[in-house]
Amino acid sequence: MHTRFQHAIGAFHLMMRAIETLRLKGHSITPEECEAACIAILLHDIGHGPFSHALESTIIQNTSHEEISLLMMRRLNTAMNGRLQTAIEVFTGSYHKRFLHQLVAGQLDVDRLDYLKRDSFFTGVSEGVIGTERIISMLDVRDDELVVEAKGIYSIENFLVSRRIMYWQVYLHKTSLSAEYLLMQTLLHARKLAMAGQEVFATPALAWFLGKNTKALDFEAHPEALDNFAQLDDFDIFTAIKVWSNHPDRLLRIMAGKLSKRKLLRIQFLARKPKKQDLQPLVRKVQETFSLNQTEAQELVVSAKISNHTYDPRQGTIKIMNKSGAVIELDQASKEFSTRALARSHTKHFLLYPKEIGRFEAW
Amino acid sequence: MHTRFQHAIGAFHLMMRAIETLRLKGHSITPEECEAACIAILLHDIGHGPFSHALESTIIQNTSHEEISLLMMRRLNTAMNGRLQTAIEVFTGSYHKRFLHQLVAGQLDVDRLDYLKRDSFFTGVSEGVIGTERIISMLDVRDDELVVEAKGIYSIENFLVSRRIMYWQVYLHKTSLSAEYLLMQTLLHARKLAMAGQEVFATPALAWFLGKNTKALDFEAHPEALDNFAQLDDFDIFTAIKVWSNHPDRLLRIMAGKLSKRKLLRIQFLARKPKKQDLQPLVRKVQETFSLNQTEAQELVVSAKISNHTYDPRQGTIKIMNKSGAVIELDQASKEFSTRALARSHTKHFLLYPKEIGRFEAW
Amino acid sequence: MHTRFQHAIGAFHLMMRAIETLRLKGHSITPEECEAACIAILLHDIGHGPFSHALESTIIQNTSHEEISLLMMRRLNTAMNGRLQTAIEVFTGSYHKRFLHQLVAGQLDVDRLDYLKRDSFFTGVSEGVIGTERIISMLDVRDDELVVEAKGIYSIENFLVSRRIMYWQVYLHKTSLSAEYLLMQTLLHARKLAMAGQEVFATPALAWFLGKNTKALDFEAHPEALDNFAQLDDFDIFTAIKVWSNHPDRLLRIMAGKLSKRKLLRIQFLARKPKKQDLQPLVRKVQETFSLNQTEAQELVVSAKISNHTYDPRQGTIKIMNKSGAVIELDQASKEFSTRALARSHTKHFLLYPKEIGRFEAW
Amino acid sequence: MHTRFQHAIGAFHLMMRAIETLRLKGHSITPEECEAACIAILLHDIGHGPFSHALESTIIQNTSHEEISLLMMRRLNTAMNGRLQTAIEVFTGSYHKRFLHQLVAGQLDVDRLDYLKRDSFFTGVSEGVIGTERIISMLDVRDDELVVEAKGIYSIENFLVSRRIMYWQVYLHKTSLSAEYLLMQTLLHARKLAMAGQEVFATPALAWFLGKNTKALDFEAHPEALDNFAQLDDFDIFTAIKVWSNHPDRLLRIMAGKLSKRKLLRIQFLARKPKKQDLQPLVRKVQETFSLNQTEAQELVVSAKISNHTYDPRQGTIKIMNKSGAVIELDQASKEFSTRALARSHTKHFLLYPKEIGRFEAW
Repeated sequence: MHTRFQHAIGAFHLMMRAIETLRLKGHSITPEECEAACIAILLHDIGHGPFSHALESTIIQNTSHEEISLLMMRRLNTAMNGRLQTAIEVFTGSYHKRFLHQLVAGQLDVDRLDYLKRDSFFTGVSEGVIGTERIISMLDVRDDELVVEAKGIYSIENFLVSRRIMYWQVYLHKTSLSAEYLLMQTLLHARKLAMAGQEVFATPALAWFLGKNTKALDFEAHPEALDNFAQLDDFDIFTAIKVWSNHPDRLLRIMAGKLSKRKLLRIQFLARKPKKQDLQPLVRKVQETFSLNQTEAQELVVSAKISNHTYDPRQGTIKIMNKSGAVIELDQASKEFSTRALARSHTKHFLLYPKEIGRFEAW
Repeated sequence: MHTRFQHAIGAFHLMMRAIETLRLKGHSITPEECEAACIAILLHDIGHGPFSHALESTIIQNTSHEEISLLMMRRLNTAMNGRLQTAIEVFTGSYHKRFLHQLVAGQLDVDRLDYLKRDSFFTGVSEGVIGTERIISMLDVRDDELVVEAKGIYSIENFLVSRRIMYWQVYLHKTSLSAEYLLMQTLLHARKLAMAGQEVFATPALAWFLGKNTKALDFEAHPEALDNFAQLDDFDIFTAIKVWSNHPDRLLRIMAGKLSKRKLLRIQFLARKPKKQDLQPLVRKVQETFSLNQTEAQELVVSAKISNHTYDPRQGTIKIMNKSGAVIELDQASKEFSTRALARSHTKHFLLYPKEIGRFEAW
Repeated sequence: MHTRFQHAIGAFHLMMRAIETLRLKGHSITPEECEAACIAILLHDIGHGPFSHALESTIIQNTSHEEISLLMMRRLNTAMNGRLQTAIEVFTGSYHKRFLHQLVAGQLDVDRLDYLKRDSFFTGVSEGVIGTERIISMLDVRDDELVVEAKGIYSIENFLVSRRIMYWQVYLHKTSLSAEYLLMQTLLHARKLAMAGQEVFATPALAWFLGKNTKALDFEAHPEALDNFAQLDDFDIFTAIKVWSNHPDRLLRIMAGKLSKRKLLRIQFLARKPKKQDLQPLVRKVQETFSLNQTEAQELVVSAKISNHTYDPRQGTIKIMNKSGAVIELDQASKEFSTRALARSHTKHFLLYPKEIGRFEAW
Repeated sequence: MHTRFQHAIGAFHLMMRAIETLRLKGHSITPEECEAACIAILLHDIGHGPFSHALESTIIQNTSHEEISLLMMRRLNTAMNGRLQTAIEVFTGSYHKRFLHQLVAGQLDVDRLDYLKRDSFFTGVSEGVIGTERIISMLDVRDDELVVEAKGIYSIENFLVSRRIMYWQVYLHKTSLSAEYLLMQTLLHARKLAMAGQEVFATPALAWFLGKNTKALDFEAHPEALDNFAQLDDFDIFTAIKVWSNHPDRLLRIMAGKLSKRKLLRIQFLARKPKKQDLQPLVRKVQETFSLNQTEAQELVVSAKISNHTYDPRQGTIKIMNKSGAVIELDQASKEFSTRALARSHTKHFLLYPKEIGRFEAW
């Protein structure tokens, strides 16, 4: 299955396999450490709200899902009298056996090994399939760091190429980006109305966030923030959107209506970031077409960018161990493959606007 | 299924899909050309004998399977009053629409697109899976040559990486190499006995080849060579091997016995080509262990090498066409990927000898 | 995929296949009739609300989903100037070519052929898999009625046995029944509160139904009933349940809390229908355990029954046509199989109550 | 995979699962008994020759494959100093824990549970799929006999219906029967020639059998019979057939030629067994068409019959255990299903003859 819950179970399963492999290769991992690593991976995504990234930059704004995961683990830890202490250390990277943290969050963590395989299977992008089992069986530890046996190098190269394919063809797919941005604009507009005192349908948990200035929202200072956040799921958002498509506010009605009928905004990639005056004609057409004022129309014309590193050495490198036990960087180990190219960052600018207003003529 | 027949059907299916795609993009392909391309791909491997490469260098020696395929097509052409004329031109590359030949034999031919996908599926090497459908849908023609649309570039990179994985992990797998070399040595020894007048069990077709000095064998001058070759299949070889495992000749008995009981030779990769004197101790041990004379023992100690280009620009390059219609080389189109590394040739030396005699100490 | 939308698409696909088969066997089906049959099957389930049967007996009460489907088709028909007229006739069975209706709703309709295969695949009940393609290829028409060719008889027998397995192992699975009944009790209690004037969180569409005496609700007299019904989906119900788990009313809080935490009621099959006094001790224990009054406690102790015909000849029989063209009933055609047994109705009584109060001692 | 070897491994796997299930339900099975049952199932089919049934009634004639399996087990037992003693007892049914034998050969043995699932998967007959895992999990033992828990009854009914489907649609498929009979006729004719002193190409092992009057062949008296039988596999037969298609004997050439080119005999089912004079016109036509004498022509006109019990209570019944532990016959347990019909034997007569001579007009 292809749900967040199944992903957690899948990553947990891979963690067990990885620990088993490392133990067979002679590395000591105590039962407590094994439990800690498994808890850390089971909970690593628990801080994700509904539509994770969309919500992270609208309903809440100064807190990442990793921080929220950590806050939830701490609550659980208190409730369970410290039973999660080691898991938290493994999760944050403060535990002394560093490779355990690398299995949770690193270049070859079991999180990626699970989601790349799961997502490529369920989206039908067969090129994205990776050799999860083989990669895990090639893992080893040297100087407290995860390394990969030299004969697994083809699988690692395939993993990096597949990951890049998944980014550009799935995670940053045009339709996906377009839906995400329209959702963000809708939530931001609903919050604006709520802050201005207008009635906006919402479940109690969603209402709590819509009525707050979330830039100033501090999860640590306000324990009820976490309670309300934990109540939120996709249903709260979907239901609200559906109801909002009949809201008296014209712009909210348009946005929510487009979302619930899957009439997404057009997305157009641009050679460079557009200047404000470039967009003026678009905004004017939106004003006319939808009978909106200028401020409202600007909420339907969105300029943004995405960028992606497939293999960013600043976030840690992949290390290869040859038969003699020597450890070298992937870059040097791979004779027929260049990871340097994968390390370069690529940024793409794009523009979103209603399909009704005709095509934007880019330069 | 995973048979040579199914591969022919699969490649034929992909040819139909490729032609359909090109026609939809406005390229004219007449019904006759379509038939010719389909016949060419259906028959492209018909010259393969049983255990193709093993047989090509033992039972016959100066004729490649492509040449035999061509000889068979010519016979069929004669029998069918010239109906295969265009197919033969497409197969040999003499037809004026060059891209048709590239679909049969080129960097992105439907032969590879079928066998890579089929083999990766049936061997369970999930990293070898390629996006066959997607690649085909991205094909186009410019200046009479196959090109790939720019948005298919990730699939092409994945195709090259996957192909390399399949070479090293499947086609040139140690066990596979070991079996192939033992089979070749066995057939060579059986032929030596047959040439010396000894009785060696064989079907009439196999006997025809065992009794000939195949170095001098000319398929064009001897029409019955092709008749006999067409009679040969895996059964002729398997059956003979089984019977030979009880042959009076000690060495043939050992070789055939090892083959039928899957007791293959040990295969050991070496840093460089071994010199003749390096192997003397091995040969002596084989002599003692198996009670053979020196000449015989040398047939059980084999030194050989393999090499592989994943992407050899001398065999034609992959061309990418961007949105504006301009065509550039893959190397220049791919920002995050280096095909130069893939183009380098890699040669590996290895040594084969019976497991009974202990490990060869390499330098 | 395993959604209601995919089921509609799947049944539509099978309808196309069935029509193609019948045409190949010489039966005339005009393009208009084909369109009508396809529309009828695409829309056959459109009247299902969220959690169909649960909602049908709580939120609305005197209207089946088939009637609502028909009301929706009529609205669409009006909006489309009569384009759906023939589709409606095929759906209701008033069209003169009766076999078209049998393909939409009959012993071997494409609805069943799709959902049995889909559900058995996705629930992993491999015994429930049926030979959909084979059954369709065996369909024919005699005297305006669907018949099955004699050589398809084993597939029909397998279809009936598989269908029975799916009923008892999936559709009427204990956990499924338990969840459905708890949902019904929760909705009934929420409606009771709403009718009594208490504030009960709901989307506008759900609120419309919760505030009505639905026994008297007449969809034909109140056009807005259909508008509101069409707005309802699973999200309205799920979201409300989640919010209700914090409702001031103790019983609603308990019910909704159990549902959202999947703490279902215990389900226990009984040899006969229990009498009211049999249940008094249970009700008392529920009162004590949950601090409820007697009326409330009775809502947590539910007695009900299910029954199932696998093959009810009163709903039409399956007819077999032998090679000579003669048509006989399945019962007579099948030498090694008795459909009479499948035609008998089986009724099972069961009881639901909270797991906290210990096991009910049945007789 | 779909080979005899994989079937043995599959049945062995199911045996392990069945033993595990029975142990969990409290039945004592010692490690020695477990080993014995596993050996018995691994070797249960070892006596099958190539094309099992075809060979059993031609090359050898008075020995079943079960007897040959037993002979081989005894040889292995001698070679292994009695290690297979218990396995042989379990295989023959003389071991005191009778249910172990029932797992190897009985109405619900793991042999059937494996081959029905494997064959239905690989032939694409989806109706033949059975719930192997579920059936095994429902197994129990009462009074030393295998029983099935009552809640598994639907799976058992499905198993019986599926088995019948597989018999009529796969194992006794017309094309399969036709190929098998042509193979038998070919082998019988080749043996006739060999017995008459003609040279007939064959491997040494096949030659041993072709030259014997196998009616009188006694495996126990002639130990070399078993040695030669063990050497035979599909390759011996296929290779000989291919060579025979160029044999000087006209009839052998016709038969072997038809086999190797898959030009099978026509198969026609008849309402009753044909009389000898019914076939005279066919035989005459064959004589003329193929220039054969009468004796030869009769070998190409074959009359035969097949019959099948799906559930033959004389071979043991399936017993159902209800919740209270009482054991009843399947027939009585199954309220909606009649096994009596499945118990009736069905016999079908059929006729085989070359397609070249036109259709036989049956009565």
